[in-house]
Amino acid sequence: MNAQSITVIGLGQMGTALADAFLAAGHPTTVWNRTPGKADALVARGATRAATVTEAVTASELVVVCVLDDAAVRELLAPVTESLRGRVLVNLTTGSPEQARAQAAWAAEHGIGYLDGAVMTTPPGVGDSANMILYAGSPELFAAHRTTLAVLGDPVDLGPDAGLGSLYDAGLLGLMWSVFGGWLHASALAGADGVPAREFTAVATRWLRTVSWFMTGYAEQIDAGEYPGADATIDVQVAAIGHLLHAGEARGIDNRLPELHLDLMRAAVDAGHGGDSYARIIENFRK
Amino acid sequence: MNAQSITVIGLGQMGTALADAFLAAGHPTTVWNRTPGKADALVARGATRAATVTEAVTASELVVVCVLDDAAVRELLAPVTESLRGRVLVNLTTGSPEQARAQAAWAAEHGIGYLDGAVMTTPPGVGDSANMILYAGSPELFAAHRTTLAVLGDPVDLGPDAGLGSLYDAGLLGLMWSVFGGWLHASALAGADGVPAREFTAVATRWLRTVSWFMTGYAEQIDAGEYPGADATIDVQVAAIGHLLHAGEARGIDNRLPELHLDLMRAAVDAGHGGDSYARIIENFRK
Ligand SMILES: NC(=O)c1ccc[n+]([C@@H]2O[C@H](COP(=O)([O-])OP(=O)(O)OC[C@H]3O[C@@H](n4cnc5c(N)ncnc54)[C@H](OP(=O)(O)O)[C@@H]3O)[C@@H](O)[C@H]2O)c1
Ligand SMILES: NC(=O)c1ccc[n+]([C@@H]2O[C@H](COP(=O)([O-])OP(=O)(O)OC[C@H]3O[C@@H](n4cnc5c(N)ncnc54)[C@H](OP(=O)(O)O)[C@@H]3O)[C@@H](O)[C@H]2O)c1
Repeated sequence: MNAQSITVIGLGQMGTALADAFLAAGHPTTVWNRTPGKADALVARGATRAATVTEAVTASELVVVCVLDDAAVRELLAPVTESLRGRVLVNLTTGSPEQARAQAAWAAEHGIGYLDGAVMTTPPGVGDSANMILYAGSPELFAAHRTTLAVLGDPVDLGPDAGLGSLYDAGLLGLMWSVFGGWLHASALAGADGVPAREFTAVATRWLRTVSWFMTGYAEQIDAGEYPGADATIDVQVAAIGHLLHAGEARGIDNRLPELHLDLMRAAVDAGHGGDSYARIIENFRK
Repeated sequence: MNAQSITVIGLGQMGTALADAFLAAGHPTTVWNRTPGKADALVARGATRAATVTEAVTASELVVVCVLDDAAVRELLAPVTESLRGRVLVNLTTGSPEQARAQAAWAAEHGIGYLDGAVMTTPPGVGDSANMILYAGSPELFAAHRTTLAVLGDPVDLGPDAGLGSLYDAGLLGLMWSVFGGWLHASALAGADGVPAREFTAVATRWLRTVSWFMTGYAEQIDAGEYPGADATIDVQVAAIGHLLHAGEARGIDNRLPELHLDLMRAAVDAGHGGDSYARIIENFRK
């Protein structure tokens, strides 16, 4: 096997997991971190330590950067712009769509191949193909490096707009916080009646598969701009949420989250859409 | 095959789907609805029409009721209490835990077997074993009728407390509204940059599997009452949510939902728990 050389810049929790996944797949891996001691364990596992960012960048055609934020990326890479020319930079640092688009423009200007990515798991989930790593920027570079990138997790191509990795990332994290919120509220409720979180959660995670099926149907309604309530209407949900609010009150649970959902539902009902499906509520988010 | 006779009382959208699932599985099915015309199509598909509630109740050992709410159940069944003695009543009407416990007490008093259930899907999902139907009340009756009930969807036994079906139901619906909220907010965001809901949703539903994996780990933390932030801390989430809020603002999206999440996170950070995992936030819901 003649595996491609990789450079990983940034060896925090995530960068370390990325470098380990490349090493485990047999890629010659060069690493650099601002605090050099964080490279020690990786070097012991077979990585090559770069003494400087320039040395790191020139060691491989594919350079992965994963540091705290966009400002750190700029600070690190601006001085080595010329060394990056002709190479491929994969930026897995979390940022905004606007930051990603600015990085892509800077890379294009200097003849640097650029992919902006988002790691959709925590460090222990890196290397598991059940988890997604999103990439946006250059479909050609994505296709060329897909196999190598697949060692980090299942690579998902979002197309040529470099901003979409960050936009999806932000949206998916928002979905995660919402899931966590609804699940923690419900776990507090069930816990008040003696149900262990583990038992409730086993049912809740199964339920998310059914909810995913609802979402898939509702997504088509959103794209069509029509929200027929043939399966379940907002009116029915308004009736049902009363039980949740009442159960929460009776158990001393903070109900701000379901109250916000009720608010959104009521706004749709007041606008005359009570007979529509829940998908209609996207119009409330659009203001 | 000598399939058990079933009675279904209430032929709204859900009751009709339940009766159809029993018919499809070859069960002799007797039906009754307040507005009799709603039974016509089922009778054409092989169901037997009962002229009165008493006739409906006495036709089968297993009587399923699915009407609008608990008040309707009482109104319908109080007059036929004696006819129900010795039979098994499966109440799939949505209600509160307190209402379910009161129904179970009434049933016990009159020698009626009682299971309280919750259908965790919409009518088109009834009959698909991928979807759950929750049952609480009598584990013995659950075991005795499990096979018959399995024609409606995968039967999940929540144990002897009849209130747990409704409590789980309320909590799971709360989770669903939270999922819908986070997903619709994110879909509005992605849509503003030209991403069709269908494309974003395909990624979002995959992401829910990763989020389920986080939840499974966090549930153990909740039961242990300890929330180590080894994978991702609340501090890291606070940093990341800034991108979501900013992206929402820039696109004119209603941000009340992520603002509430940030509020919950900040309260945990202010209480000195920024280094803990997100599971710690259950303490905020408990007030
Ligand atoms: N952890 C997760 O679950 C997760 C999941 C998805 C995405 N991410 C993203 O991955 C990125 C890294 O996260 P992490 O969890 O690895 O964080 P971390 O453990 O806190 O590591 C931060 C890394 O950034 C480096 N850094 C910070 N400021 C720098 C600067 N000005 N110049 C050079 N290096 C600098 C740090 O170097 P020092 O060691 O010298 O401080 C360290 O290598 C973040 O954008 C994060 O949002 C994390
Ligand atoms: N639809 C869903 O997606 C869904 C999912 C899970 C659970 N559920 C639950 O299933 C139950 C039924 O919902 P559905 O969707 O079938 O509603 P629906 O289509 O509105 O039907 C309501 C049913 O209740 C009957 N009813 C109402 N008040 C009554 C009364 N006082 N006496 C006798 N019958 C009365 C109606 O009879 P008439 O035909 O004479 O009006 C009709 O059969 C509800 O508790 C709901 O929360 C529904």
